[in-house]
Amino acid sequence: MAQHAPSHLSVGMMLFPSLTLLDLAGPYDVFSRMPGAHVYLVASSLEPIRTEKGLTLTPDTSFENAPLFDILFVPGGPGQQLVMEDEGFLNFLRERGQTARLLTSVCTGSLILGAAGLLQGYRATTHWRYLDLLSLLGAQPVAERVIVDRNRITGAGVSAGIDLALSIVSVLFGKDVAQSIQLSIEYDPQPPFPGGSPNSADPELVAGLSAKLDDVYTKRRRQIERIVARL
Amino acid sequence: MAQHAPSHLSVGMMLFPSLTLLDLAGPYDVFSRMPGAHVYLVASSLEPIRTEKGLTLTPDTSFENAPLFDILFVPGGPGQQLVMEDEGFLNFLRERGQTARLLTSVCTGSLILGAAGLLQGYRATTHWRYLDLLSLLGAQPVAERVIVDRNRITGAGVSAGIDLALSIVSVLFGKDVAQSIQLSIEYDPQPPFPGGSPNSADPELVAGLSAKLDDVYTKRRRQIERIVARL
Repeated sequence: MAQHAPSHLSVGMMLFPSLTLLDLAGPYDVFSRMPGAHVYLVASSLEPIRTEKGLTLTPDTSFENAPLFDILFVPGGPGQQLVMEDEGFLNFLRERGQTARLLTSVCTGSLILGAAGLLQGYRATTHWRYLDLLSLLGAQPVAERVIVDRNRITGAGVSAGIDLALSIVSVLFGKDVAQSIQLSIEYDPQPPFPGGSPNSADPELVAGLSAKLDDVYTKRRRQIERIVARL
Repeated sequence: MAQHAPSHLSVGMMLFPSLTLLDLAGPYDVFSRMPGAHVYLVASSLEPIRTEKGLTLTPDTSFENAPLFDILFVPGGPGQQLVMEDEGFLNFLRERGQTARLLTSVCTGSLILGAAGLLQGYRATTHWRYLDLLSLLGAQPVAERVIVDRNRITGAGVSAGIDLALSIVSVLFGKDVAQSIQLSIEYDPQPPFPGGSPNSADPELVAGLSAKLDDVYTKRRRQIERIVARL
């Protein structure tokens, strides 16, 4: 299970406009606590990036200057729609994906990995509303919190990134290190209500939110069909 | 329980160097999904801020230009030590705290609220390692995930911010809105291991991490004793 970690563990976290902050921040605060880890915040340029709800953050590594990564991570968010047709971004993922030990994503970041062709033949997950779209990209959608299939590790919507990252730490460093990080960020979640997943939520609530996301869903489906037709 | 929210709900999230990103990002992605909410990222100036592990983010509101807030929120992180003696920062909290509907914090942000004198006579919580320090600041420490005492709402370490923010949404908008946000960020946490709190973790692990944090703990205790002596 646990493997010796190299003295410098290189983590590349991909940034793009309109990513969802928590998709990034959960894994970021777990990865950056791994022994000997260096986290790179990678984008096409070092220009500040406006995330989904307006907060601006700044990449520290451009595609040009990026090292090889042990872990390559892709967050999700509405900007996923643009990135899925950004050949520079997808080519960077394809190229760096060849040498990464782990290829990982959370939420609709999985659709980006899929658009780069990196989930073909893999079991994978994403935000519940978009789960079936993974099959268009050659993946086998699984409605679970975190899916590990060989070196592809994907997480469900937004907040699943914390569970995903802790799972990754346990794969790389073993259970003790993962639990120590979990205790340091006091990850003993106690949602005030049940219902954080479509399985546990009130069906009426699921139907309502699902309907609200219908337009986005349909746009994404059409876009993915176009992308796949071009391949 | 639920109260009518104003058409524009103003949320002030305080930024400072070396804050912990997830302390901020969990509540940020919940607050920014509240109907009619506007989230302000507030700091003494608009200069970019380097957070605990290196990621840089940019405030959008200076103390000078900040509006009144319905919710005032303070994250934690190692930078808490500097901020606790920054009179400009503390005075801003004291002044804006008078008109805020809710005064809230997560992790060691509670020590900052306390240093501003805003938790005197209140039940409150913070990161488990620093919990007893709250009593030096006139608060009554409680080892729970989220503590609501009148209009002071405080959360435990780092990841508790998500639970804290969802609790706040339910206070302001009712359970349905909170659950809808919870479902949209798929907050159905499934930590890969138990042990995210000192109550559930292996005692040896707790003792080990606790010892690692002894120096920081002692420094914070001495600092708070100095601050309290000056009052």
